[in-house]
Amino acid sequence: MTRLYRDEMDYRGRQQRIRRTLGLHSLDALLVTHLPNVRYLCGFTGSAGLLLVADSTWTFFTDGRYREQARTEVQGASIIVPKGPVLDAAVRAVGDSGVRTLGFESEHMSVAAKARVARILRSKVRVRQTRQLVEAQRMVKEPAEVERLRAAVRLGSSLFDKAVAAIRPGVRERAVAAELEYAARWAGADGMAFETIVAAGERSAFPHGVASQQAIPRRGFVTLDFGVILSGYCSDMTRTVFMGKPAARAQRLYQAVRDAQEAALEAVRPGSAVGEVDQAARGVLRRAGLAKYFIHSTGHGVGLEIHEPPRIARKEPEVLQPGMVITIEPGAYIPGYGGVRIEDMVVVTTTSCEVLTPTSKEFLTLRESGPVVCS
Amino acid sequence: MTRLYRDEMDYRGRQQRIRRTLGLHSLDALLVTHLPNVRYLCGFTGSAGLLLVADSTWTFFTDGRYREQARTEVQGASIIVPKGPVLDAAVRAVGDSGVRTLGFESEHMSVAAKARVARILRSKVRVRQTRQLVEAQRMVKEPAEVERLRAAVRLGSSLFDKAVAAIRPGVRERAVAAELEYAARWAGADGMAFETIVAAGERSAFPHGVASQQAIPRRGFVTLDFGVILSGYCSDMTRTVFMGKPAARAQRLYQAVRDAQEAALEAVRPGSAVGEVDQAARGVLRRAGLAKYFIHSTGHGVGLEIHEPPRIARKEPEVLQPGMVITIEPGAYIPGYGGVRIEDMVVVTTTSCEVLTPTSKEFLTLRESGPVVCS
Repeated sequence: MTRLYRDEMDYRGRQQRIRRTLGLHSLDALLVTHLPNVRYLCGFTGSAGLLLVADSTWTFFTDGRYREQARTEVQGASIIVPKGPVLDAAVRAVGDSGVRTLGFESEHMSVAAKARVARILRSKVRVRQTRQLVEAQRMVKEPAEVERLRAAVRLGSSLFDKAVAAIRPGVRERAVAAELEYAARWAGADGMAFETIVAAGERSAFPHGVASQQAIPRRGFVTLDFGVILSGYCSDMTRTVFMGKPAARAQRLYQAVRDAQEAALEAVRPGSAVGEVDQAARGVLRRAGLAKYFIHSTGHGVGLEIHEPPRIARKEPEVLQPGMVITIEPGAYIPGYGGVRIEDMVVVTTTSCEVLTPTSKEFLTLRESGPVVCS
Repeated sequence: MTRLYRDEMDYRGRQQRIRRTLGLHSLDALLVTHLPNVRYLCGFTGSAGLLLVADSTWTFFTDGRYREQARTEVQGASIIVPKGPVLDAAVRAVGDSGVRTLGFESEHMSVAAKARVARILRSKVRVRQTRQLVEAQRMVKEPAEVERLRAAVRLGSSLFDKAVAAIRPGVRERAVAAELEYAARWAGADGMAFETIVAAGERSAFPHGVASQQAIPRRGFVTLDFGVILSGYCSDMTRTVFMGKPAARAQRLYQAVRDAQEAALEAVRPGSAVGEVDQAARGVLRRAGLAKYFIHSTGHGVGLEIHEPPRIARKEPEVLQPGMVITIEPGAYIPGYGGVRIEDMVVVTTTSCEVLTPTSKEFLTLRESGPVVCS
């Protein structure tokens, strides 16, 4: 059996850090149910399993379908494949272990599952809600993780030209997505990180316009927002191009969003509050009279998940640290007309940031005969 | 703006039925947070929104990104796009409405979200866990839903030949998945219903072997398990083919799984317990000495979700009813050797069942020059 991925990740360091976190929160153990957190802590990549993190012994629980895969992948934990439900077995193990205070991931356990946990443990163990203990650690990427993200971004960017080559009036948005996703698979992607967005003409005013059966019109914006998963890590990028010859209004809209995106990139440095980055983008759009058309936050963390902390938004408390990998993606969406979004992925460095996405942000306009860069 | 889908679904009937359910459970209102349930009840297809079902008035809450889409899609509910978090706004609306007992979906609300609900409502409203109130209704499909599922299954089946045509020794599993998914997009699928499984050689012994970078070997089983989403409804099918000339052992294994699958299909009729269907498949494999290699349940419901109730498994209480659409998918997985799974989708009729999947179940063996059916 081959390993599913070559694994140079620092599981030992991660496990030590989360152990310290448990100490700080006066927890004897943590039940990790969110799969990206499970993967982060022990390497398991399957779709069913949970990790019981205790002071001395770690145990990974999964079902029969994943027995072999767990043996190959799981690091730093013993493996149990119980007969009945995996959650029940893990909770019974807690009950038998002498653990007095058990933390669980309150954002990743349903009320129904929690009720089951309580039923099994009765009052033997104190059960405490936790929030983002593992996510907080995951926000700052290890060098090996940055390299994986860099590789994912590079693969993602390499698909852009292929998608653009498929854009012509009359071609359905879905056909453009098909070409892009096909190229992604051939380039070695594990899969797409989210539903590919191809939103043309008036649909470009929908920030989440997943590729539809609508045809590309003769004239108008086309927004492409897509990402791949490569060795478990996600990429995310957006470019907006123009089919036909853009009028001055379209050029101004594009330029304003581009300026906002550059201003936000300028604001990314260690020690900055994420709200400042958001404000940098928003300020540019406000001065262009477009503030009310920027109806989402400026960005988000990316890693094992396509959306993970920190959120780059107004009221968020987070401060940027070296090693964080985030998107910067302001947009402006004018109902009935169209919209523009430009998105890069960046890694926070010790002094500022490095833009990972190599694709040009010049305003690309397409003729039926092929693309033209319009400065 | 074009509608995202032509909508001939019976929202009015669904809304009447869920209203009766609330009455039976002594609930004044239900907070529907599970998106497939939201879609089922009011037609919204986006990725963020929730539905507050009260006796007289229904309200759908979403964020600014989905304002336009909600206007186009939502049926039988008024639409609110609050400034702050959508959940908070919905819960405040409950507090102001005179509702005394509010149900919520305990399997689809996190402990953290529930804590927030309680904080906002304090003791003004009694909050009660519910389970599968909407899912119970969704299990039995309307005729229009069966037609959508039939269309999805037909599209899915049409891809099988294209995938098989891509299978040759040395071709990576992912490349086979790429061809299949590309064909799906061109055929008009919304997307894939789950990660495509292409598991060749020894990897065919992994029931969830998603397409990897491993190459197809010169000889061995290749399992293809895939599904599309078409107009929101999922398909799911599995076939296992053989690359090269199969020895008697491989032929016996295939035949046993095929017999088990046929036996389970025979057992599908209204009034049967789902456990009987599971036992029908398991009995055949037991008599072939393969019981211990059948390490999952026999099937599951399919509809707006790829996995939905009922589970076709040993200890489940459900009884089959006309209009249920389920998979029948026994398998046998021999570690270090390989595995076979065969899966169809079926609809329970008033007397027995109709197999929706038109693809042949003959043992298909592939030569480098092309496929050969081996009876």
